Amino acid sequence: MLEGIKIEVYKANQELAKNGLVTLRWGNISAKDENTGYIVIKPRRTASALLRPDDLIVCDMDGKILEGTHAPTSDLFTHLEIYKAFPQVMSVAHTHSKWATVFAQAGKSIPNLGTAHADYFKYDIPVTRTMRPEEIAKDYEKNTGRIIADAFTLKDPMTTPAVLVKSHGPFVWGQSIHETVDNAVALEYVAEMAFYTLRLNTDTDMNTYLIEKHVQRKQGGRNEQ
Amino acid sequence: MLEGIKIEVYKANQELAKNGLVTLRWGNISAKDENTGYIVIKPRRTASALLRPDDLIVCDMDGKILEGTHAPTSDLFTHLEIYKAFPQVMSVAHTHSKWATVFAQAGKSIPNLGTAHADYFKYDIPVTRTMRPEEIAKDYEKNTGRIIADAFTLKDPMTTPAVLVKSHGPFVWGQSIHETVDNAVALEYVAEMAFYTLRLNTDTDMNTYLIEKHVQRKQGGRNEQ
Amino acid sequence: MLEGIKIEVYKANQELAKNGLVTLRWGNISAKDENTGYIVIKPRRTASALLRPDDLIVCDMDGKILEGTHAPTSDLFTHLEIYKAFPQVMSVAHTHSKWATVFAQAGKSIPNLGTAHADYFKYDIPVTRTMRPEEIAKDYEKNTGRIIADAFTLKDPMTTPAVLVKSHGPFVWGQSIHETVDNAVALEYVAEMAFYTLRLNTDTDMNTYLIEKHVQRKQGGRNEQ
Amino acid sequence: MLEGIKIEVYKANQELAKNGLVTLRWGNISAKDENTGYIVIKPRRTASALLRPDDLIVCDMDGKILEGTHAPTSDLFTHLEIYKAFPQVMSVAHTHSKWATVFAQAGKSIPNLGTAHADYFKYDIPVTRTMRPEEIAKDYEKNTGRIIADAFTLKDPMTTPAVLVKSHGPFVWGQSIHETVDNAVALEYVAEMAFYTLRLNTDTDMNTYLIEKHVQRKQGGRNEQ
Repeated sequence: MLEGIKIEVYKANQELAKNGLVTLRWGNISAKDENTGYIVIKPRRTASALLRPDDLIVCDMDGKILEGTHAPTSDLFTHLEIYKAFPQVMSVAHTHSKWATVFAQAGKSIPNLGTAHADYFKYDIPVTRTMRPEEIAKDYEKNTGRIIADAFTLKDPMTTPAVLVKSHGPFVWGQSIHETVDNAVALEYVAEMAFYTLRLNTDTDMNTYLIEKHVQRKQGGRNEQ
Repeated sequence: MLEGIKIEVYKANQELAKNGLVTLRWGNISAKDENTGYIVIKPRRTASALLRPDDLIVCDMDGKILEGTHAPTSDLFTHLEIYKAFPQVMSVAHTHSKWATVFAQAGKSIPNLGTAHADYFKYDIPVTRTMRPEEIAKDYEKNTGRIIADAFTLKDPMTTPAVLVKSHGPFVWGQSIHETVDNAVALEYVAEMAFYTLRLNTDTDMNTYLIEKHVQRKQGGRNEQ
Repeated sequence: MLEGIKIEVYKANQELAKNGLVTLRWGNISAKDENTGYIVIKPRRTASALLRPDDLIVCDMDGKILEGTHAPTSDLFTHLEIYKAFPQVMSVAHTHSKWATVFAQAGKSIPNLGTAHADYFKYDIPVTRTMRPEEIAKDYEKNTGRIIADAFTLKDPMTTPAVLVKSHGPFVWGQSIHETVDNAVALEYVAEMAFYTLRLNTDTDMNTYLIEKHVQRKQGGRNEQ
Repeated sequence: MLEGIKIEVYKANQELAKNGLVTLRWGNISAKDENTGYIVIKPRRTASALLRPDDLIVCDMDGKILEGTHAPTSDLFTHLEIYKAFPQVMSVAHTHSKWATVFAQAGKSIPNLGTAHADYFKYDIPVTRTMRPEEIAKDYEKNTGRIIADAFTLKDPMTTPAVLVKSHGPFVWGQSIHETVDNAVALEYVAEMAFYTLRLNTDTDMNTYLIEKHVQRKQGGRNEQ
């Protein structure tokens, strides 16, 4: 079932690892089939390097497993909440990529300090609120997805397709698997640059006209250099 | 047309990527043919890894496309302004290399703190002024080239062949394609070292006699070690 | 003798190097055979890249060499003290991996600031006390093992399977060779992130409920993503 | 002439590059033949990646070329001064390796903060004094060697086989080519760790007993792990 998407998700997992965003077994990517609305996602406890397309799991939006012999990643219910909250999202990735996770651990959003950021993300990358004890105790992964949705009540999730889960790490999405991988790579790159930019100049800021220009330039194709 | 230059520009694109200066599709390099004055440049939306010599575009100094089936990079008009302002320049590269971009985002020039810098760049690497709203709204890429030229009204662009466009990233040039790639690699390396040098010692400074010596030593060949 | 374990230890040495945790000849890993209680460990003065399974040494818990033509690593007696103090430990690794060593040199423990840490280590990674002159003068390596054991008098060494030897570097352990390599990789990764997190936000802290959740989630399999 | 040494110096040049210590054409290594006292050194303007054993130059201690069709590296006279000042030195390397150069540019010595440092270098790595204008104007490279020798008037150059030339970069040496490459790799590694250690704890210090222990342990073999 959904063999084409499985191969794409499989390749995207390799891409995340190849771009240095995944260490050990930390990280997973999923995609939504536009016809059935089913989700293809990585099984639990599998290093990306060992994953094969047949190992991928197909489930519905309630998390019911439709195909696959392994258990899905424990982050499945976070992915599902993101798909439910943001209907335009066709793919979701979760990594512990270093610099995005540093901002997540610090509980700080990633400020938009340059055109590289604006080419992919219109606003600062938001950080979720602290989870309440009862949200952690029960339905932890689902509640992680809900606080992600909460972080976008005032923002369009498609113009700024990433979030930092506090004390945890980034989730990234896009309108395609390919775009989601690109957004994950771009997020890590702009996070690192933002960190060092703030060390050099705590007062630096980006011209809002310049942000608008680069957000517009990407229409019809991301970062058209 | 200009097949030899196309192969060189093609290879230079690979070199930029191999040296870690290009991520995703961020970055481009062009060259000027000394006989015709035509420019060879990368098409838009092409990862360096996918580029082939035949994909390159030939245009004249006004940006009129003479050969090529793709649209040129949106940065074409910035490249053209640099060629117009600095007639000795035979090649231009634009990257979002990490450390040079950090200085660009911080709006800070890269100070000349060591012989590695002086072997390639006589002065601090300047940062352009903030663009005005009307410069961003219309002819943005052309105006980016103009503020680059403005940054060199008091400096010889050939002894310090690089600039940081504020909130954006570096542009680098040279008297040949090979020299331009070298300058882009050197810029990133000295930017990183300058960043950390300032963290260790905010008062550090380089002997101007030593700068002169290394600027002279490179006559007849860059960094003759 | 113990050929199967030798091959595993040999491969684990390669894994440490491949993950960037070992430079030059700095680093070694050992394993305990559950039947005999014998230890398999790396010989002295051998770069991991040159090591072959047959070069590995077998000794008993008193350090008596049972097999092997080379001398064992000088760190052997530190490994043995860890096995004696923590009976559940089946494998021990010592590296000078960069970020863990930075914390060791600074004499600072690595704080638990995110789920990536909690997935592998329940508590902060402790740092040993300063060694006394007489502990350095005689039985230095054995005493290094003893101050490691001292650092766990109030902590379960299996829920936080790593320590920083002050002014020196990390020792890491686990219930298997594979788990020990994973713990060494995870330690270095969380050490780097902790360093930068503290630079961004010196007051950051992790919800203890979240730590407990991730410590529990790993039961039955580490970091089940 | 000296074909065996040429092959070793050739390989050592590759090793420096492979260990990330050499970028572009920055860096060179030489060796002294114990029978003739002749020096084998890299030619000028050659990237390590392009160098072949036959390209290497043989000269005497006065810099008179005995064999070789290329000009020697402009740093030749610095190498020669080091061989003259420190008779036990059999090989010298010069790089612009990043972290050692950061300390050189900051004009700061690299403090001995851990056993990794003490395993290779007994004392802090010294930084040379500022050169006087007349030392730069005439015989610059020779004078660079002289201020290196000056930095060791109170220190044994063999127990601390490296120096930082202020505003420039490191020179490293050893009793063999192999040892010199190891020292260059170790220098860069301990420089980076010292930088970050000081960021975490500006008051950190290493037990002098521990330094002595590790200096002694290396007798008969460097870092006998």
